Formats: sequence, C-alpha cells, structure tokens
Amino acid sequence: MKLLIKLFTISNIVITSLFASETLNLMPVPKSMELASGKFRIDREFKIEILSNHGDDLYAYATRVLRRLDERTGLCFSQDILFPDETVDDALLKIETQSQGQVKLYEDETYHLTITNKDINLTAQTDIGAMRGLETLLQLLDADERGYFFPTLTIEDEPRFPWRGLMIEVARHFHDVNVIKRNIDGMAAVKMNVLHLHLCDDQGFRVESKVFPKLHLISGEGEYFSQEQIKDIIRYAGARGIRIVPEFDVPAHGTSFIAAYPELSSSDKIVTIERGWGVKNPTLNPINDFTYKFLDKLYEEMGSLFPDEYFHIGGDENNGKDWSANKDIQNFMKENNIADNHALQTHFNKKILKILTKHNKKMIGWDEILQPDLPKESVVHSWRGNKYLVEAARKGYQTILSRGYYIDLAKSTTDHYNLHPVPADSNLTEEEQKNILGGEATMWSEFTDSEVVDSRIWPRTAAIAERFWSAVDVTDVDDMYRRLDAISFRLEEHGLNHIKYKEMFMRRLTNNQETKSLKTLVDVIEMLKVYKRHQTFFKGEKYQSHTPLTRVVDLTTPDQVIPRQFIKLVDQYISSDFSPEYEQQVRSQLNIWKKNDPELRSIAKKSPILNEILPMSEKLTTVSEIGIQTLEYIKSEKKPSIFWKRNVLKSLESCKEQVVGTELMIVAPIEKMVKKITE
Amino acid sequence: MKLLIKLFTISNIVITSLFASETLNLMPVPKSMELASGKFRIDREFKIEILSNHGDDLYAYATRVLRRLDERTGLCFSQDILFPDETVDDALLKIETQSQGQVKLYEDETYHLTITNKDINLTAQTDIGAMRGLETLLQLLDADERGYFFPTLTIEDEPRFPWRGLMIEVARHFHDVNVIKRNIDGMAAVKMNVLHLHLCDDQGFRVESKVFPKLHLISGEGEYFSQEQIKDIIRYAGARGIRIVPEFDVPAHGTSFIAAYPELSSSDKIVTIERGWGVKNPTLNPINDFTYKFLDKLYEEMGSLFPDEYFHIGGDENNGKDWSANKDIQNFMKENNIADNHALQTHFNKKILKILTKHNKKMIGWDEILQPDLPKESVVHSWRGNKYLVEAARKGYQTILSRGYYIDLAKSTTDHYNLHPVPADSNLTEEEQKNILGGEATMWSEFTDSEVVDSRIWPRTAAIAERFWSAVDVTDVDDMYRRLDAISFRLEEHGLNHIKYKEMFMRRLTNNQETKSLKTLVDVIEMLKVYKRHQTFFKGEKYQSHTPLTRVVDLTTPDQVIPRQFIKLVDQYISSDFSPEYEQQVRSQLNIWKKNDPELRSIAKKSPILNEILPMSEKLTTVSEIGIQTLEYIKSEKKPSIFWKRNVLKSLESCKEQVVGTELMIVAPIEKMVKKITE
Repeated sequence: MKLLIKLFTISNIVITSLFASETLNLMPVPKSMELASGKFRIDREFKIEILSNHGDDLYAYATRVLRRLDERTGLCFSQDILFPDETVDDALLKIETQSQGQVKLYEDETYHLTITNKDINLTAQTDIGAMRGLETLLQLLDADERGYFFPTLTIEDEPRFPWRGLMIEVARHFHDVNVIKRNIDGMAAVKMNVLHLHLCDDQGFRVESKVFPKLHLISGEGEYFSQEQIKDIIRYAGARGIRIVPEFDVPAHGTSFIAAYPELSSSDKIVTIERGWGVKNPTLNPINDFTYKFLDKLYEEMGSLFPDEYFHIGGDENNGKDWSANKDIQNFMKENNIADNHALQTHFNKKILKILTKHNKKMIGWDEILQPDLPKESVVHSWRGNKYLVEAARKGYQTILSRGYYIDLAKSTTDHYNLHPVPADSNLTEEEQKNILGGEATMWSEFTDSEVVDSRIWPRTAAIAERFWSAVDVTDVDDMYRRLDAISFRLEEHGLNHIKYKEMFMRRLTNNQETKSLKTLVDVIEMLKVYKRHQTFFKGEKYQSHTPLTRVVDLTTPDQVIPRQFIKLVDQYISSDFSPEYEQQVRSQLNIWKKNDPELRSIAKKSPILNEILPMSEKLTTVSEIGIQTLEYIKSEKKPSIFWKRNVLKSLESCKEQVVGTELMIVAPIEKMVKKITE
Repeated sequence: MKLLIKLFTISNIVITSLFASETLNLMPVPKSMELASGKFRIDREFKIEILSNHGDDLYAYATRVLRRLDERTGLCFSQDILFPDETVDDALLKIETQSQGQVKLYEDETYHLTITNKDINLTAQTDIGAMRGLETLLQLLDADERGYFFPTLTIEDEPRFPWRGLMIEVARHFHDVNVIKRNIDGMAAVKMNVLHLHLCDDQGFRVESKVFPKLHLISGEGEYFSQEQIKDIIRYAGARGIRIVPEFDVPAHGTSFIAAYPELSSSDKIVTIERGWGVKNPTLNPINDFTYKFLDKLYEEMGSLFPDEYFHIGGDENNGKDWSANKDIQNFMKENNIADNHALQTHFNKKILKILTKHNKKMIGWDEILQPDLPKESVVHSWRGNKYLVEAARKGYQTILSRGYYIDLAKSTTDHYNLHPVPADSNLTEEEQKNILGGEATMWSEFTDSEVVDSRIWPRTAAIAERFWSAVDVTDVDDMYRRLDAISFRLEEHGLNHIKYKEMFMRRLTNNQETKSLKTLVDVIEMLKVYKRHQTFFKGEKYQSHTPLTRVVDLTTPDQVIPRQFIKLVDQYISSDFSPEYEQQVRSQLNIWKKNDPELRSIAKKSPILNEILPMSEKLTTVSEIGIQTLEYIKSEKKPSIFWKRNVLKSLESCKEQVVGTELMIVAPIEKMVKKITE
C-alpha cells in the first residue's frame, strides 16, 4: 500500500501547484476570491465581536465557531460566550450585518470576507449570510511551524441557486434527532439551506400527530419524532439558516396512513405496516370526502408545526392498482370525464392544493404531479429525469432537481458533481432557467440505518453542495477530490460518523480480531449501484426492515479511494509505455491483494459472518494473479497466446459478478492491461 | 509492537486454559454455572417465544436481543417483532416469568438459564430477571468454523447487591439524551440497575422546571433536558430494568439555584453561573422560609417527574463561608442552640426530609449528611471514605459506597475491582452489612464532554458492575482483564464511543496526517490521576467550562494496555534472570519508542496543537535510551558505574514529571531494571 500512498502524495503535490492557490480547501468554491500572500495569525487572545444585533442566532453561531476553532487548535481562547450588545475589547474578527434574514426561499446569503495581517472583517446583508461566511473562514484555517493562521484574502460570495437541499428519509429506517442534528451541522458547513424530511411512507409514519394519534402510535411503531423534537429540529436548523421542508407522501406510498386509518383506503383489504421495499398498492381514496377532511386537519396541524412556506405532498409512484380495482372510483371517473389514473391524481392534487393554499402553504410534489391542469403555484420536484425539470421550467413552474443526486444509489462523486441543475442542452431562456430553484441530494433509507447513514451522505453531498452553490464553470474533478478529502475530515467535528464507523464495523465483522485483511478487501469493493442491490436476495429472502445492515456490503462505501487511484496508476503505466517505475507500483499493489485471501479466511473461521464474502476474496486473488501474469508478459516482452487471453478475459468477466451485493472495482484496469498486450 | 501483541496472545492462551472454562466471556460472573461440552447452534430459523405476558417491555427487550444477535451474526433471522400473546412456532428460546417486576430497590433479578443442544430455556421470577438472563445469553455467543453457537450449560444467577449504580454528572459538561441512552444500554449489558443523574451544580441546572422556569432558562444556558426528554429517559431505562435517581444538590453547590433565584441565597452577592471547578461559596439560606417553600414546590414537581422512591439531595461540600458571614444566620444559630454549620445543615436536612416524606420520597444524600440526629429513613451515600459507610451501616442507616469508584479520577480498573462495598475489616454484623445496599461508579464531568465521556466510563465500569453483582470471591484480576476486553468490544454495539473516538481524535490532533507516531506516544501516557489534573494550569489559566477538551491529555484513557503489558514483561525478564527471549521483546519495544520522536515532531510542524506534548515525547526517547543502555550492560555482563546509575536515576525521575496533565507510564519498569543491575 505504501507505494499507492506515495503516488497519492505525488499527485497531491501536482494538484496543489495547479489549483490550491485558487481554491485552497474551500468547498463550495466562492464566487470570487483574491488571495494575498500574508497570514493572519491567531492566538488565545483571538476574539470575535458582532457589531450589529438582529437576534441571538448569530451570536450563538459565532460562539460555536470560536469553540470549533479552539477544539482544532487547542489555543484555549479567553473569550467565552458572545452576548448581544456586549462590547468586546480588541476583537480581531468583526462581523456586521444589515438584518437578521429569514429562513425562507430567496433570502440573501451573500457575504464579504476580508482577512488582512491584522484583522478580519465579515459583512453580510443578513445574519444567514454571515453564517455562510463564518463557515468559509473555518475552512481557511491553516497552520505552519509558527502556529495557526488564516491566509490574507478577500472573498465576495453568493450562491448560484437558492434551493440547496438534502432529503433524508426516516420511514424505511428511522434516524433520530441526534442523526438529524449532526447532519444539519454538516449541511451548514457546506452552505446547504434546505433539509427535506421524508416523514412517512409505506413502512412508517414518523411524526407525532395530536389530531390523528394513530398515525404515530400505530404506524410509528415506537419510532417517530415527537412534536417537541420536531420543534427542536426546526429551531436547530433555523439557527443555522436552514429550512425544514416536510413531506407527507400521498396519495400512494400510503400504507402508513391506511394502516392507522383504514377509512382512507381505496381498497377493502386490511393493511399493516409494510416490511419490504418497492412500489406498493395502498393508496388514499381520491373520491372520498373523508380523505380531504382528514388531510385538511392533518395539513393544518403539520402546517403549523412546520413553519416553512413549502409543503411537500409526495405524489410519486402511484401504480393505480387500487384505484383501477375500485368500482366506485371507476364510476366517479366516468361521471366526471376523468380519463385515467394520472388525471385522477391531478384531480386529487387540485383539491389538496386548495387545502394547502387555505393553510398558507405552497405545494411541492415529485414530478408525477406535472400533469395537464397542474396549478401554476405548485413546485415540481424532478426525480425521474431532466425532461420533467425542463418541461416544468418551460411551462412556468418552479422546479428543483433530484434526478442524478440520488446518493442512496452508491454512485461516484464525479457522477453527481458533473450534473448541473440547469441542463446544458435545455435551451431554456434565461427567464425559464430562473424557475430552476436548485436541487436536493436524496438519502432514501432502504439500506441505511443510523450507523451507516452518515457514510452514505458524506462526503459526496459536499460536492453536490458545491454544485448548487458555486459557479457553473467550477468543474475540475481532481481539485474537487482534493478538497473533498479535507472537508470530509473536518465534517467529523460535528459528530458525523462517516469515517469512524468503519473501524468499529470491522471489529464487529471480525469478531474483534485483526481487521487488516478485511480492510484490504473492503477497500476495493463497493455495494452494487443504482437499484441492483434491491435485486439481490439474502438467504433466499428479499431485504426487509429488520434485515441486519451489518454485513460486508453495508460496510462498503461508494467511490472508494484505492480503486480510483489504481485505475489512474494503470492508465499512467499504459500511457507511459509500461515504464518500470509504474510497473513497480502496480506490482507491489497486486502482491498485497494476491496474498490477502488466506489471512481473511483464517479470520472468518472465528467469524462466520465473513464466510459469504470469501468468494469475493477469491476473485481478488484471481484478478491480482492475472495482473501479475500480465506484468510478466510485459517484462519479458513475450506476447501471450490467444488461449491465455481468452481464458483470462473469461476469468475477469466472472470476477465482475456480484457477491452478496458487492462488486470488485479493480477488474476494469486489469482487463485494460490484458487487452493492451494482446491487441 | 508485534512482539508485545504476540506476548499478549500467548498470555491470553495461558489465561484461557486456566479460567475460561469457568467464566467464559461473562461479566459479571454468575452466581453458579455448570458448563457442559455441547453446542446449541443458531441459524436463521432461531426464534424466541415468551410464554408469559406481564407487559410489553420484555417483548421489546427480546426483540432487541434478536436484532443484536442478527447484527453480530448476519444470519437474517426470519422472526421480526415479538408481540404479546402471539404464538411462535418452533421457538428454540423460551422465556417464562412470574411477574412483570417493578423498577425499584430490592426487586427480584434472579434468573435461571439452561442451554442444551436442542433448546434454550430462560426462567425468572420477574421480567427484569429475564432481561438480566438475556444479557448473559448474548455474552455467551461463540463461533467456530461451522457457525455460531451457545455453549450448553446451566446458570443460576442473582446479584450480590440490590443497588448497582452509575452516576453521571451533567452540570459541568452537559451530556444529551443520546449519550445517556447509550450508557443506559451499556449498564443493562453488565446488569447495573441504577442511573443516578447529578442534575445541577454550580455550573448549571439541567432539567426544565415548569414551576421555576428560570432554573433551566437562566441556569441551563440552553443545555438541559426538557421534561419530555426526562420522561423519555425514564421510560427507556425502565424498559431495561434500570432506575433513575435524580440529584438536586443542596444547600451547597448552589450557584445554579441562586443565579436563577437570588432570594435563595445566604449572601447578598450577585451570583452568575460558575465557569470554574472546585468548592464554591453560594449556599442556600437555611433560615429563610422561602427556601423551604421553594424546595417544597420543586420537590413536588421533580418528585412526580422522577417516579423513583429515592431522591438525592446532595448535601456535600458545604464550606459554610456564606453561612458564617451572614449575621442573621449566626443569630438564628445562637437562638436555636445550633452549635456549628454541620449542625445547621442537619437542621436543614431535617426540614427537607420532612418535605420529601410529604411527597413520598426517601432521602439520599452524600455522607456529610451523616450528622447526629440524621433521621433514620435517610440513605447515606459515602464518598469520603469507608469510615462513613461503616458508621452509617452500624447506626442502622441504609448506605451505598462511591468512595473508590470515582471513575473520573482515571485510576486503574484493578483499583476499583479490588474494592468491595462491604469492607473486609469492617466487623459489621450480618444484619448491619445488609444496610450496605451496594455502590455507584461516579462520572463527574469537569474533564469529560460528550465526545470522551464514554471512554471514561467504559470499560472500567463493567468491572465495577461485576463487583456489585458477583460473589465476594470473584477476584481474579487477570481473568477480569481478559473478559473486560471482550465486553468492551461488545459494548460498541450500543453506539458507545469509547473505542472509536480515538482514531477520530487523533485525526483531529494530527490535522489529518498519519497518526501512528501519536498513537505510539499516547499508548504509554495517561492523564494525571486523582485530583492532580485540577492542579495543572493551561496556558496560565485554570480549566473552565469552555476550555477545549481536544488536547492530547483528553485523548489519553486510564489503565492503558501497553504499559500494563510492558510492566509484566519486564518483571518476567527480571525474574527469568534476564532470559534472552524476554530481552528480545523488551529491546524491540524500546526501539520502537526510541525512534518515535522525530516522526511525531514532523507531524507537529503542521499541527501545532501537538507542540505542547513534545517534551513528553522527548521523555519517552530518554526512557527508552536508558532502557537500551541497561540491556547492553546486562548483555555484556558489565556492571555500570555509580555515576551512570546516579545520572540515569535522576533522568528517570525527571521523566516522571507531568507534561500538560499527562504522565509517562513506563518509567517504573525501566527504573526497576536499572536498580536491579546496580544493586
């Protein structure tokens, strides 16, 4: 592994000389920055003063900034808590804003940061803008032998999009207040401003309802947010300039409603909380007055609990089966000239839009709501494709994009990073483009419990946050990865678990034995991407709510560093015309992989949970052996036989097959080498 | 390090053959156990049935047991949630109890566990006893090449003491619900049954009071439990057979009361929330009716919030200064023939005992309350010494011991383990001994924030839990440490942070550089024990609430493995008359330490927070060099000069000096070697 690390360091240095002067460790990259060569040094007398007073939140924020700096530097600042209207002598960081700012769409988040050798000035239109600026400042902390400092510079910054969101689903697996709060802190660190909570689905209803208590008592199964907790979350997010947008998914994904209140159903079937994943039948009855009375009361309650002006009604994945099977509904459609289930859903949407409007809410829904006659006040949340986004924007609907930002699908950061909310080929006018408010990364929770959820969200979401904030021409992938490493490390200070969960997970998997051989394997495999894992069965059964998420597949994280580096290394090896320097590095890595299997096998003897991954361990041996054979051919300058080629390509093909939901990420570069020498 | 690990493995094997057949990985060791040679194998059809129904808690507990087993084994059990009165076909674990059991002192916790090749039976008088038995079962999980199994055996078990507590302070540093809950799970895993919450002190008041809201609004400073959260904690603990005993410390440690309600004070001075540690003056006024009316209302509110029949009034560390300085109080004492401040506190205690009795509570207080005339219904909580415990027991007071179980003082597990709640030399009659209800480990929080608190509590508290549960003759320290390792690992499954926080902490300390050299140093140093850290100053200032707890001293944990092993190794080396085999191991370890400093120094260049520990790193080099010199003398069979001896002993003496609150744990064995060869 040593050589790989060295390689990484080398490439880091290269990258540094190219880009670091422009972007430092900032993520998202600010709109404009002028870097000078000086240093503002901090010591224990570093103090902050806020010159304006528009409410306590910014004071509390600045106090936390002081603590975070202190925890990193151990300087033990003399300043304790910042109180409004208290004069601070000799403050070196001065903050001034014009207004408090509201935690709502389109609020001004611009800020201006100036760091000289002597002092730091942060000004902003709103307190929220100042919070964004403080996060920038924290990312600028640097150190040399003399101590800690900030580089001298001037930054002018503002976001490209006003809606920079993360959706967290808490239905299929529940995540408690603690998980939500640490992720809110992570969002604030990368300047995101909307946390969308997907609060109910077929698998559970996760908010206390005082009006309809069976919703949480029956369909929450003991796992839900109390209203006090929701208020706490909203306060916590608000104090960080982050909106909370609630989603109560209707009319489909309706099991949690119907299990609690069967009279809402379009069917007579008795329904209990769902344990499996996928699209299910239970759907609210769109022709029953009770449904609308129910939603009216629920929206009234939840609308006042969640103060944001936007209210997400879901509206996705209605398979229409229960509607088609219900004679009354069919009759109603005929009588009212409703052509099909889509049109019926539009009918439903219109009625609930009216209810929401009555409660002063703007409706947002997944892109299925984009039907003819959809009222113009609705916001279309695109998840099925750019097509719907562009169509919505062109038709004058406000819209946000999630298609392509589905972080649950285990794709690489690059994939998400390269996707822009405004499609380059959309031909939208400037005015139409303004209808695209931004986007949301979506963390669906089929395969994520609270132990692993942070590692599915971070650090990839930081790159998505940059996509939502930074200019359209900030696109350098290498530099993004360089900065992502630094940001990922700093995100740990919020209690985020995304790095440290791994060692613990491996201790459990090895039954407290040496974890090295497991790590070697896990570093080169990833869970299946997109929806392929859904298709894998486990012990002959489909995944369910109670299936343990503690197996090797759950330990793997997307976008692994080692394969990424290895692919690059092999490319360099090939393009250097098989230079011995690279050959040595490739060989050294292959040798480590080649000899890993026996050690892992011996660990598995005392930890049978590992047995299922041993076939993958064998594949790693196979791939490395083929790789070494290839190196030998190159070294000896002999051309391998056609039979050899055929055999190893076949072997490599089989090494691409999934094992218990995982796939090996280093087959492609070996295949590339083989093909290269047998051309 | 390799050789040390090997040594450890070897010593493990030795230990295993000696004791493992008796105690397996059980902690606490059960009262009696008959181990057979069979294995009960589990697969995905493993199911649990509860034959009795005395309430939901045991069903939920058993469901969690199923999930914990599943998470460890990855077997993916077909059984989901256990519901009362649901028949379970082919259940292989059957549980039967006679009653629900109450979460109160003296409740029956006995259980009887039988594991055969074919099935498992767990019976208990109460559901709480069954919960204890389920934890035993989980500790018995083992594995071989064929899979997971439980050893066949019969266990009869019951606790030695009925009060097996952990006190967590949340005043000086607040720990939120999440921290409390995961520690409750840890307690349940080692069969503890009392969580004592020290809820207020000079530094803060941590519970919402609806009657006196300034208590939490002013003195909570945003960090307190809401009443809903308290109820949640009590429910959570109760469902695990754990009592919550609240403490509101009066009349001293009274700043948080007085900062909110100055009319309670014995002094005219204006008081704000305390930021430093130590004994402070603010003390409630014992001659003011308002004080008693206030406490009456507060106890009424808190007494109904906390259902436990015991209510802790604190009563410790009253320096009496504010009382002595108050003329009215002095006059009152004269008029009422109250001899001194101790007698005045007894007067105070009598009055609040009356109030507590009115609210159906039993009073418990720290041992200062043991004054003549202390009402017999009071419980004495000994923290200053066995003397008070024994005196209380002899006088007929119920009493519990914390002196010697102060886990905040960073002492070794052995120290705590060797201490029994009933002192061997107490001469108490059997009847008097029964007054000793048990004990409590105490986690005071001057130096523990939520990031490190788990590592201060665990795993040492598991050994204390064994002391409170197991028979008096369970005293084998080596076997305790062997089991402690296994238990510590398993405690991670509750989200306890005590192992995984270290890597994260080191990433931060190194500024995301390689952590190896820091680890090498940190593995051989410990924070100063007892109250010595309080005497260290930091950057010229005493520690305060906002002092960052992210420095090397905060990373260190008590009772480190490496020094413990090294001390043993050197002893073996000396007692083997300098055998070459041990010499090789000692030398190899010393060489690692000797060359560590330059690497750490280079890391510190980019992470100045490490600079303060470099003098300790130098000491490690010095000690190792002296050690190697000593080995050379032994090898060459030359006797060193008297000058050499004098010099190195002086050097070693200086290596014992503290550096920023830490001390080096491997000086003593080197000194021993030096003295041995210069005898």
